[in-house]
Amino acid sequence: MDSLNANRHTLSHLLAAAVLERYPHAKPTIGPAIDTGFYYDFDFSGAQGENSAPGEAELPELETAMRELLPSWKTMVGVETSAKDARDRFKTNPFKLELIDEIDAKGEPITLYTAGEFTDLCRGGHSEEPAADIAPDSFCLDRVAGAYWRGDETKPMLTRIYGLAFNTKAELDAYKAQREEAKKRDHRLIGKELDLFTFSELVGSGLPLWTPKGALMRHLLDAFVWELRQKHGYERVTIPHITKKALYETSGHWQKFADELFRIETREGKEYALKPMNCPHHTQIFARHPHSYRDMPQRYAETTMVYRDEQSGELGGLTRVLSITQDDSHVFCRHNQVKEEFFKIWDIVDTFYGAFGFTLRVRLSFHNPEKPEKYLGTPEIWANAENALRAIAKERGADHFEAPGEAAMYGPKLDFMATDSLGREHQVATIQLDMNLPERFDLTCVNEKGEKERVVMIHCAIMGSIERFSAVMLEHTGGSLPLWLAPVQVRVVPISKNHHAYGEEVLNALAANGVRAKLDASNDSLGKRIREAKKEKLPYLLILGDQEVAAKTVTAESRDHGKLEGLSLEEFIARIERETKERT
Amino acid sequence: MDSLNANRHTLSHLLAAAVLERYPHAKPTIGPAIDTGFYYDFDFSGAQGENSAPGEAELPELETAMRELLPSWKTMVGVETSAKDARDRFKTNPFKLELIDEIDAKGEPITLYTAGEFTDLCRGGHSEEPAADIAPDSFCLDRVAGAYWRGDETKPMLTRIYGLAFNTKAELDAYKAQREEAKKRDHRLIGKELDLFTFSELVGSGLPLWTPKGALMRHLLDAFVWELRQKHGYERVTIPHITKKALYETSGHWQKFADELFRIETREGKEYALKPMNCPHHTQIFARHPHSYRDMPQRYAETTMVYRDEQSGELGGLTRVLSITQDDSHVFCRHNQVKEEFFKIWDIVDTFYGAFGFTLRVRLSFHNPEKPEKYLGTPEIWANAENALRAIAKERGADHFEAPGEAAMYGPKLDFMATDSLGREHQVATIQLDMNLPERFDLTCVNEKGEKERVVMIHCAIMGSIERFSAVMLEHTGGSLPLWLAPVQVRVVPISKNHHAYGEEVLNALAANGVRAKLDASNDSLGKRIREAKKEKLPYLLILGDQEVAAKTVTAESRDHGKLEGLSLEEFIARIERETKERT
Repeated sequence: MDSLNANRHTLSHLLAAAVLERYPHAKPTIGPAIDTGFYYDFDFSGAQGENSAPGEAELPELETAMRELLPSWKTMVGVETSAKDARDRFKTNPFKLELIDEIDAKGEPITLYTAGEFTDLCRGGHSEEPAADIAPDSFCLDRVAGAYWRGDETKPMLTRIYGLAFNTKAELDAYKAQREEAKKRDHRLIGKELDLFTFSELVGSGLPLWTPKGALMRHLLDAFVWELRQKHGYERVTIPHITKKALYETSGHWQKFADELFRIETREGKEYALKPMNCPHHTQIFARHPHSYRDMPQRYAETTMVYRDEQSGELGGLTRVLSITQDDSHVFCRHNQVKEEFFKIWDIVDTFYGAFGFTLRVRLSFHNPEKPEKYLGTPEIWANAENALRAIAKERGADHFEAPGEAAMYGPKLDFMATDSLGREHQVATIQLDMNLPERFDLTCVNEKGEKERVVMIHCAIMGSIERFSAVMLEHTGGSLPLWLAPVQVRVVPISKNHHAYGEEVLNALAANGVRAKLDASNDSLGKRIREAKKEKLPYLLILGDQEVAAKTVTAESRDHGKLEGLSLEEFIARIERETKERT
Repeated sequence: MDSLNANRHTLSHLLAAAVLERYPHAKPTIGPAIDTGFYYDFDFSGAQGENSAPGEAELPELETAMRELLPSWKTMVGVETSAKDARDRFKTNPFKLELIDEIDAKGEPITLYTAGEFTDLCRGGHSEEPAADIAPDSFCLDRVAGAYWRGDETKPMLTRIYGLAFNTKAELDAYKAQREEAKKRDHRLIGKELDLFTFSELVGSGLPLWTPKGALMRHLLDAFVWELRQKHGYERVTIPHITKKALYETSGHWQKFADELFRIETREGKEYALKPMNCPHHTQIFARHPHSYRDMPQRYAETTMVYRDEQSGELGGLTRVLSITQDDSHVFCRHNQVKEEFFKIWDIVDTFYGAFGFTLRVRLSFHNPEKPEKYLGTPEIWANAENALRAIAKERGADHFEAPGEAAMYGPKLDFMATDSLGREHQVATIQLDMNLPERFDLTCVNEKGEKERVVMIHCAIMGSIERFSAVMLEHTGGSLPLWLAPVQVRVVPISKNHHAYGEEVLNALAANGVRAKLDASNDSLGKRIREAKKEKLPYLLILGDQEVAAKTVTAESRDHGKLEGLSLEEFIARIERETKERT
C-alpha cells in the first residue's frame, strides 16, 4: 500500500473521531480510502431532529475538528484481539458486530487500530505517524451522500461523508481545479450548448437523438475512421439490427448476455433479439461462400447501433445509454496474418487519436481463469490468444500493462487508454482476438493444400462507440472542436447592413468551396453576434466592414490562432482547406 | 367491363367445359378473369387415383380440347332463374349450392350462362359471341396450383388451373417473353450472381445481409440521394431504433400499427418498440427548442432501418422483409412553404429516376372516407391536405391519377410509379403531406407576429426503401449496373504472366484515381477470365497484351459501348471519371 493511500485511510478514521465528538450517538460502520480521498459511512439514526446528523453545512466544522485532532495522532497502532473482546467493545454498534461475526467466521485475525483517543475495528493499512505524515492542508471534506449498508437497498440507509486527500495542498488544489473544469466541460452541457444531441421523455432516457449539427459531427468522425480503414483494405457490409434466437444460441450470446439482451417475440411467437454485438451477423456474411487463402484476409467494417438492456438507474448523457453506435470491424484471417492485421489497426488508432492530441497506453485485457463460466472456449485457446497479444504488444514496443478479468467473452482484448486534456484516462479503442466464434460458426478458408483451415477473427472498434468517444472528446476539447470536425467552421458577420451584400458573396464563395459557413445578418449588435459565435466555439469568425468590402478581403478571428487581417478570400479559403485536410 | 376481360372470363368457362369432358367427376367452383388471363378452381376429390385430376402434363390436352370446343360457342347467353331451379341443377355440387344460398340470401338475381353445351352459375360479364371474339391462338393454359375454397385454410383444398389470355397471339407471346426475361432477371438470382446480398438461416428469412459489393452499391445509391438533397438544404439527423411506448401512444402508431409493431419488454418490465417509422422520433428533434419563422423550413434526412413484424409466409427476397432501410426525410415547414418543398423533392425524384431511365407517373393516394378508423385526424384536415396535393400535381403538369384508400394513416401521399425496362410498373418514391402529427406533438414555429403557429410535416423517401428500390433496379437493369454504381467498375486482365507487371501498374493508376478496379492475374485461361467478367456484368474489361505493354495503352471492352482500342491510360481514366460524374 502506498503512503497516500495509507494517509487517506487514516483520514477516514480521523473523520470518524471528529464525527463522534460532535455526534456521540453516531454509529461508525466502514470507511475506506478511495481514488481521490476517503469516505466514512455513519448511522445517525440514534437521535432525531435537526442537529442529529451533519449536512454539507456542517462539513467545515468537522474539517476544523479533524485538523485540531490531527497533532494528537502522533502514532497509529494496531493490536489483535479476541472476537469476544471486540464484540464487547462494539456491543452497541450492530454494524461492527456484523463485521466481527464475518471475520470470526472466516477465522481471520480481528484487529483494532488506535490513534489519539479513537479506536476502530479495522484491517489496517494506515499511516503509522499521522501527525507527521499528513499535511493539515492536504485534505478537505467534500460532500454528504446517502448509501445503503453494504450497498444493499434492502438494508438501512446510512450517511456517507466524502473527503478529498492528496500529498500536498498544491495537489489538492490542482484536483479541485481540474474537477471544476471537468464540471464546466461536462459533455451533457456542451452537447446542449453546441446543439449536438437531445433527449426526449417520450423516446426515453439512454436514447440520444442527434440534431443536424451532432449528426454531422458523427458523420465526420465516422468518415475519418473509414478513410483510414479504406487505405488498409477494409470493405463495408450492412446487417439488420435483429436476428432469430438461433444465431445467438450458436454464438453463445443467448446465455452469456442473458440480462442485457433485448428480446422480441413476433406475432407468430418466434423469438428474436436486438443485436448487442455485430460479430455473429458478420460471420454469416463471411460464411456465405467458401474463401480461398488467396482472398484472405476479409476485412468487414460497419458503423451500426447495438442495444443493451441497461437498468434505467444506470443511464445518463452519452456514456450510459441503451443503444451505442459501434464503428465496428471484423477481420477474418489466417493465424499467420494476425500480427500484420493488428499492426494495421494500431496504425489507424495512432493516427485517429493523434489527430485529437490524446496520449495512449495499452491494456492487455485477459480472462480471469477463476471465472471460466464468463467465457467461451478452452484454456488452450485462451493461452494461445493471450500469448499472441503479449508478443504483439512487445514487438510494437508500446507502453502496456496486463489486466486479468477484463477480456471479452470470446477472447482477450488489447484496449487503448487515452489520457485527456484534464489528465483523466478513458478506455477508448479496442482490438480483440477471437478463436472461439470461428469454432462455433465453423469458419474456414481453403489453404494451399486444398484443405479447410480454421480462420481467426479480429474484432475492432476504433472509437469504441461514437457516443462514448463523443463524450470523451467533447470534454477533452471543451467543445472547441477541431476545424475539420466543427459542424459550422466559419461564421460570417457583416458589421452593418451596408456589408450584407459582401457577406452573402463571401458566404457563397465559402460554400462553393465546401466550407461549412453561416451568415449572421441578424439585427443584433456586433458585440452580441461576436459573443454568440464565441459561445458556440466556432473555429473562425469573419468580420466584414468598409475596409474589407473596399479591398475585397476578410478579417478573420481564429479561435486558436488569434486575429488574421487583410487576407484575400482565396487565401482564407486555401487556409481552411489546408487545415481541414491536415486535420490540424 | 372491357372486351379482353370479357374474353378472359369466357375462357374460364371454356376451361371448365373442357375439364368436365375429361373429368366428369370434377366439381367446378369459381373461375374469374385476372390480370394476365383467367383461372378456374375445381374439386377433383370425387374420384381417386392417378388420372382423377389433371397435372401440368395434362394442360396441353385440355388446351386442345378448349380450342376444339370454341367454334361451337357461337353465342353465350344468360338467363335468370329461381333459387330452387338453380339448387336442383347443381344439387351434386356443394360449392355452387353455397354460392346460390348466398346470392339468394342477399336477394340478388341468380343467373345461368350457357355457351355450346355448357351452362354455369355466373354473374355475367362474358363475350357474347365467343367463337368470333376469341382468337384460338390468343390464349394458353399455364399452370396448376392448390387453392383453398374461398381462400380459407380451414376449407377444402381445390385445384386451380391458370390460363394466359390476351387480344392476340403476338400479345400473348410478348407477355410470355417478358415473363421469361423477368424470371432470368429475378433480383434474388442477380443478387447471388453479383454477390450483393445473402440470407442466413440462423439470422432468419426477411433479414438480408449485405456483402461488401452490395453494401457499396447501397452506399452509392444513398450518396446519390444525399447529394441531391444536400443541394436543397437538407441536413442529416440520427435516431436510435427503439423508443418507449409513450412516443407511439402520442403519435397513434401504438394502436394503428398494432400487429406489425415489434414490441420489447425490458428487464424492468417497461414497454418499448422497434421503430416501424422514423417520423415520431424526428418530431422530437424538431421539438428540442423553439424555432423562429426565419429558421423554417427545417429539413431532416436520415437513411435508417425500420422494422415490421410481417408474417413469415410473406417474406421473400428483398421485397418482403422484416427490416427495410428508408432513405427518409421530414420537412417541417409553414403552410405557405408546402408547394415549394414538394417541388424541390419532385426535382430530386426526377433526377434520381432519370439516371436509371425509368419513366414515372404519379398516384395521388387519398384516404378512404368509408374507413375513418384507419386514419388519424378530422375530415377537414384531410380535405385540406388532399386539395393541396391535387393543386400541386396540377401545377406541376404531371401525369397523375387519384387512388382513394391508398393514403398513409397520417395523411395523403403523392406516390411515384416507375415503369421498368420490362414494362412493369412499381411504386417507388413517395411524398406525404401530414397535418396530423404536428397536432399530436404540438409542433410550432414562432411567426412574424411573435405567435406560435402550427407547422406542417412533409414525409419523403426518394428510393422508398433501399431494399425495394434495389430489387426493382436490379430487375430493370438485369444486373448491368450503371458505371457509377457498379461495385467493380473495371476488371484488368493481363493476357499472360508477361503482362502482370503492367497490369499492376494499370491497377494502381486506376485506384489512385478513385476507379474501382480489380486485377485478375489468376492462372485461368484468358477466355475463362473474360467469360467470368462478363458474367459479373462489369462495365469495363481491360485486356493487356504485348501491344498494350509496348505502347503503354489499354484495350477496353465496354459492356455498353463495344471495343475501345489504343486508349492511353489517361484517356481511359478521364473517360471513366466523366461517365461516373455524369452518371451515364
